[in-house]
Amino acid sequence: MTSTLDSGLLPARTEPHPDVDSAAARRAYELDRKHVFHSWSAQDLLDPMVISAAEGSYVWDGEGTRYLDFSSQLVNTNIGHQHPAVVAAIAAQAAKLCTIAPSYANEARSEAARLIAERTPGELNKIFFTNGGADANEHAVRMARLHTGRKKVLSAYRSYHGGTHLAVNITGDPRRWASDTASTGTVHFFPPYLYRTAFHSTTEAEESQRALEHLEQLIVFEGAATIAALILETIPGSAGIYVPPAGYLQGVRELCTKYGIMFIADEVMAGFGRTGKWFAVEHFDVVPDLLTFAKGVNSGYVPLGGVAISPEIAATFGTKPYPGGLTYSGHPLATAAAVATINTMEREGVVDHAAFLGNDIIGPALADFAIRHKSVGEVRGKGVFWAIELVKDRETREPLAPYGASSPEMNQLIAACKSRGLIPFANFNRIHVVPPCNISVEELKAGLAILDEVLDIADGFAA
Amino acid sequence: MTSTLDSGLLPARTEPHPDVDSAAARRAYELDRKHVFHSWSAQDLLDPMVISAAEGSYVWDGEGTRYLDFSSQLVNTNIGHQHPAVVAAIAAQAAKLCTIAPSYANEARSEAARLIAERTPGELNKIFFTNGGADANEHAVRMARLHTGRKKVLSAYRSYHGGTHLAVNITGDPRRWASDTASTGTVHFFPPYLYRTAFHSTTEAEESQRALEHLEQLIVFEGAATIAALILETIPGSAGIYVPPAGYLQGVRELCTKYGIMFIADEVMAGFGRTGKWFAVEHFDVVPDLLTFAKGVNSGYVPLGGVAISPEIAATFGTKPYPGGLTYSGHPLATAAAVATINTMEREGVVDHAAFLGNDIIGPALADFAIRHKSVGEVRGKGVFWAIELVKDRETREPLAPYGASSPEMNQLIAACKSRGLIPFANFNRIHVVPPCNISVEELKAGLAILDEVLDIADGFAA
Ligand SMILES: Cc1ncc(COP(=O)(O)O)c(C=O)c1O
Ligand SMILES: Cc1ncc(COP(=O)(O)O)c(C=O)c1O
Repeated sequence: MTSTLDSGLLPARTEPHPDVDSAAARRAYELDRKHVFHSWSAQDLLDPMVISAAEGSYVWDGEGTRYLDFSSQLVNTNIGHQHPAVVAAIAAQAAKLCTIAPSYANEARSEAARLIAERTPGELNKIFFTNGGADANEHAVRMARLHTGRKKVLSAYRSYHGGTHLAVNITGDPRRWASDTASTGTVHFFPPYLYRTAFHSTTEAEESQRALEHLEQLIVFEGAATIAALILETIPGSAGIYVPPAGYLQGVRELCTKYGIMFIADEVMAGFGRTGKWFAVEHFDVVPDLLTFAKGVNSGYVPLGGVAISPEIAATFGTKPYPGGLTYSGHPLATAAAVATINTMEREGVVDHAAFLGNDIIGPALADFAIRHKSVGEVRGKGVFWAIELVKDRETREPLAPYGASSPEMNQLIAACKSRGLIPFANFNRIHVVPPCNISVEELKAGLAILDEVLDIADGFAA
Repeated sequence: MTSTLDSGLLPARTEPHPDVDSAAARRAYELDRKHVFHSWSAQDLLDPMVISAAEGSYVWDGEGTRYLDFSSQLVNTNIGHQHPAVVAAIAAQAAKLCTIAPSYANEARSEAARLIAERTPGELNKIFFTNGGADANEHAVRMARLHTGRKKVLSAYRSYHGGTHLAVNITGDPRRWASDTASTGTVHFFPPYLYRTAFHSTTEAEESQRALEHLEQLIVFEGAATIAALILETIPGSAGIYVPPAGYLQGVRELCTKYGIMFIADEVMAGFGRTGKWFAVEHFDVVPDLLTFAKGVNSGYVPLGGVAISPEIAATFGTKPYPGGLTYSGHPLATAAAVATINTMEREGVVDHAAFLGNDIIGPALADFAIRHKSVGEVRGKGVFWAIELVKDRETREPLAPYGASSPEMNQLIAACKSRGLIPFANFNRIHVVPPCNISVEELKAGLAILDEVLDIADGFAA
């Protein structure tokens, strides 16, 4: 397998790109440092790379140097950068009708709702549109609370659900800690994660069964009648792309049904082709009560998110108003981009391509990395949604960066990727392999070859 | 004045619009009813109007009938619909670079931050971009909490700050009630509102002074050391466009400074020209610690909001990370639309035009309505941001719809506006006059003439 990985497959990194204007880029950098306040960052310690152009699986910095985007930015450009069909649809809709209020009906909004509803599992046929993932989860929780008349939300450790107050409080990663004032109402449980099991399991089957036992105990002790919803990323994303073991999600579904708890599947990162299916829940044959999405729905070309709603929950707001909303719900430009994205993915077979890349290229290459590189503790994933978990010691599984933090070693690996022309997605002790779903086989192999080289450096940090 | 109001100033309402395709509109309606879940609504009771085209101050329904948009949708299309300069900028940016992650720098994002920072009052020079108004307020509150180390938020009754969990909890209108679980941490105060005074005042000066006394008592009894922020719409919008009396906002600023409370001015609806200044705070010569915006920043052509941050608060996150963010923070397409919008407003003198319309047309016309129509209890506003408060009885001031609800009478008035070709903005017992900031004098007079007619109907409901 690895013999075919070859970083020489890529074109020269310094071919000029017509959209790059280095004087404009320098000014953008200066204004950025003066005026832009960045997400999740210490503002004075930033040295942001300017991105001036992008195309397919590539981005260009302000000096015109090309990079292979193995991050899909924040795992959102599922159809790559600047897909001409989506760009054209945005221009066409912009020329026609940019914005209307949520109370009206509109062609783009209606058609996007249809295309999404036809792809969501079961009968999740009503779509409430939001601007992104966080507000999708906020509204899903509100719907579940009002539908059940209960208040508490169960949520997994090692999860991320967004940055607004409720969304970050139902998040189970360190991004929650600074805003942990509303934990009244949120109870966290341990999800299955065999590599670092909380249940002393030795097999996937055992991990699944014990994680379900734990969850049921927690429901019983919290009091089922107090719990409105359970929110879970179908395949958790920035928390580590840990694919749930067989039977787990079915078990969660059964527990939710048994106890009258609304099951919210967060497919913000895993949805829209990322795992080689339209939605990751399809791998597990499970239908949640609410499904939240964003990112891949239109590859992030225009901000959009939403909630797909079961008939039962929608009926709760049939003759009684749903008490929630936002100015840009069902924004025509954003939904027109979704229509073009979904139709293009369908026409070009992007979802099947993602499945193929996972099965035939990334899976085998990463399995091989796990054998050859002693810094690799575990690899896991599906489609174009993979994690490489890096350790200092395979025996102790000590991570290459502590939970919730970075480390000089990880920073060195990220820099090594960049200097080789690859933008990685890194978090704590992990590097994720999350290129666009329509990356070509050559580009993918070239990127994997760069990771292979960088893992040689990582091996130097491992016992 | 009124003699010049004339609904005959408008072109024929049924001139065909090339973008309207009535078969497509009918299908949009059907798909909407099947698949779209609408904001703030009882889903089965909806009969949404299809909007298929828009231009300047007009929209067209699915049958090609034209309406004058006196709502600016949700008071967001400050430069009207489909301004060619902004549409062209969106198409150009779409062709260049639709999306990049928040950690990078980018020309459109940097330039939008500069243009906004240069217009915000004082030294609010750092801009954190969000997708809309709700998340702008969520992040402003988080910044204030982490900056002060305190938790509580003071917020006014008769206010709206957005639909996510924290934003709706700091809201002081009925939209909060269904989600009122997080009031831990939110304390509401009575803002000045002479027409329905909570303080038994008889003059604006008295109302201002008593409202400030009330606020200071509340701060003292809640414990200043527990209060992180006070959030206030500079001129409250959907709650009734009640312009604060002279001295009130300066008083609030002084109390906040005295007690170490961060003053958050919500300019989501009042900002970007709506009141005849770039920001409504300029009318009152007050500089908040945080200023939130959305809507008018790019007229809602692409979802965008944000927070302008004081140097002191920004410094708190200089070497310590700000624990908040979102995938689309500083979205290139959204910020490119902001750049084009702000430059266009500047070039075309839109803000001064809004001031002129308020002073010379709307103000006098509404003052005259208040004399001639017994259903009019009070009129108030600035720029293109006005409210007509309708009553059943001028003596008792009994509103034409109860607080937090509609009424058959109000619904009849809304229908009467629509049948005459005018889309009003109505809330409870009020009709707001909130057309685009660049509406022409003729269009404005025609719309006011329609309102004048409709107020004749309203007079029939009044004692
Ligand atoms: C699983 C998941 N849910 C929710 C979110 C929040 O989405 P947004 O950043 O659009 O608010 C993210 C973002 O990374 C995510 O990965
Ligand atoms: C004053 C004010 N703040 C905040 C918001 C919320 O903005 P959004 O709907 O974009 O979340 C609104 C929306 O109407 C508003 O008027």
